[in-house]
Formats: sequence, structure tokens, C-alpha cells
Amino acid sequence: MFNRLDHVGIVVSDIDATLKTYCEQLGFKLLERTEIAEQKVVAAFLDGGNSTIELISPTDTESGTAKYLANRGEGTHHVAYEVDDIIAALAELKAQGVRLIDETPRQGVHGLVAFVHPKATHGMMIELLQKGHHKGQ
Amino acid sequence: MFNRLDHVGIVVSDIDATLKTYCEQLGFKLLERTEIAEQKVVAAFLDGGNSTIELISPTDTESGTAKYLANRGEGTHHVAYEVDDIIAALAELKAQGVRLIDETPRQGVHGLVAFVHPKATHGMMIELLQKGHHKGQ
Repeated sequence: MFNRLDHVGIVVSDIDATLKTYCEQLGFKLLERTEIAEQKVVAAFLDGGNSTIELISPTDTESGTAKYLANRGEGTHHVAYEVDDIIAALAELKAQGVRLIDETPRQGVHGLVAFVHPKATHGMMIELLQKGHHKGQ
Repeated sequence: MFNRLDHVGIVVSDIDATLKTYCEQLGFKLLERTEIAEQKVVAAFLDGGNSTIELISPTDTESGTAKYLANRGEGTHHVAYEVDDIIAALAELKAQGVRLIDETPRQGVHGLVAFVHPKATHGMMIELLQKGHHKGQ
């Protein structure tokens, strides 16, 4: 079901300071930086070779990401796996009794996404990602 | 410096229950299970396509992993990147002023490893891994 690890998402408080660390000190290359207005976050994608790192930072103190940051602090938020067919993958997980955050996919930056509940995966929040489906398709 | 993401390490309290979840419910394939006596942990590696998932569980209540679990609960512990030359990579990071947990590499299950301090990477603990160097080499 899970073809490949697409990215590791980490929540950070200051995206500019973090980009400076990752790009200047650690040698990662910035691929894309984008604001996701409906989620009230800014995201930056860094080239990690066979996968990417997604840095996520809240742009509003009331966003879910801001609350996560306040409760848990900076750190790894999710691990995203690419799937061929997100509807089929969600149905398969549901049939296996896996607790899901999203029973139906929603639009992400790079395709359709859905999250598995971290309680179902012993603390690792898994994102399913079906690439290439954008709004209006 | 970082060639590819080799694995995501997650700390779990019960490795058998977690393997059941990952293999039976989520469809991951177990590649290897091994006890690391000196670290007082058992580790299991699951095939994640372009990378692996390492499940880590303490075998002793006094181990560092047991303390991590007691303080932080189950969840993502580290992200391991493969490097060609771990000595050179550590020297480069040190020259950039990056705080390290290990200034010199130590023996891991699949090669030489060293950890960057999570405070230096905004909460993501990065492991450097130079594969293929085993004890006695």
C-alpha cells in the first residue's frame, strides 16, 4: 500500500530561522516555500535526496499547528507515504480497523492527503499522499 | 552531505503489539528484528519502500530508551540520513557550529552512527549513518 516515504513533516516556531539552520548549517536545498491560507501555516520543502523535509510553521495563534506547537513544542509531526490510490488505501485501512483522522481525502499542497490517527500507529502520525491531484481536477 | 533518508526511528512500548499493527494492519513487511544488548533495546526494521521504519523498544527499565518513553511517550524518535563519510560529515557540521550528541561515530546495527542534537535542528533528531562498517572492520 505504502509505495515510498515522500516526506517527513516537522513543526517549527520560526520558519526563517529554521530554514537558515537547514540550508546554511546542514546543507539542505530549499525546493519550495508556500503559504497554506486555509490551514494558517507556511510550509517549506527541502531536498532530502530520496525524500523531502517539510517544515511547517503557524501563521496564526489559533491554528491547529499553533496549538500543536504550544502543547508539544518543535519536532517531528508526521511521516508521509505515497500511495497510488488514496480512496482504496483508506478503505483498506478502515477494513483493518485502523483509526483514521480523515476518512475521506482532502486537498494538500502536492495532491490528495489523509492522516492516520497516531494512536493507531504507536505515536507516528502517518499521512497518505496521492500525488498530482490538484484543485479542480 | 545527506545522501538519502535511510530510516525513521520510532520508540514504542511493546514491540510485538506494534509489529502486529504495522505488519498485519498497515501492510509493512518485517525485514529484521534484533536485540542490541549494549543499548538495552530490541529493534525491528520494516520495509518502507525507499526507506525503512525502525521500531525501538526498551528491554530494561533503566535504559535511555525507557527513560525517553517514560518522559515523551511513544512516537518518532529520529530520522536517519545516509552519508558517505561520517567523520567528514561530523567535521563539517562541527565547523558550522551544529551541536552534536556524538562528536565521534559509534557502532550501530548497520554501520557507524552519530546523532545531531535535536536543539540544533528544531526538534528533529537527525542520525548520520555510514553503512557497512561493522565491528572489527
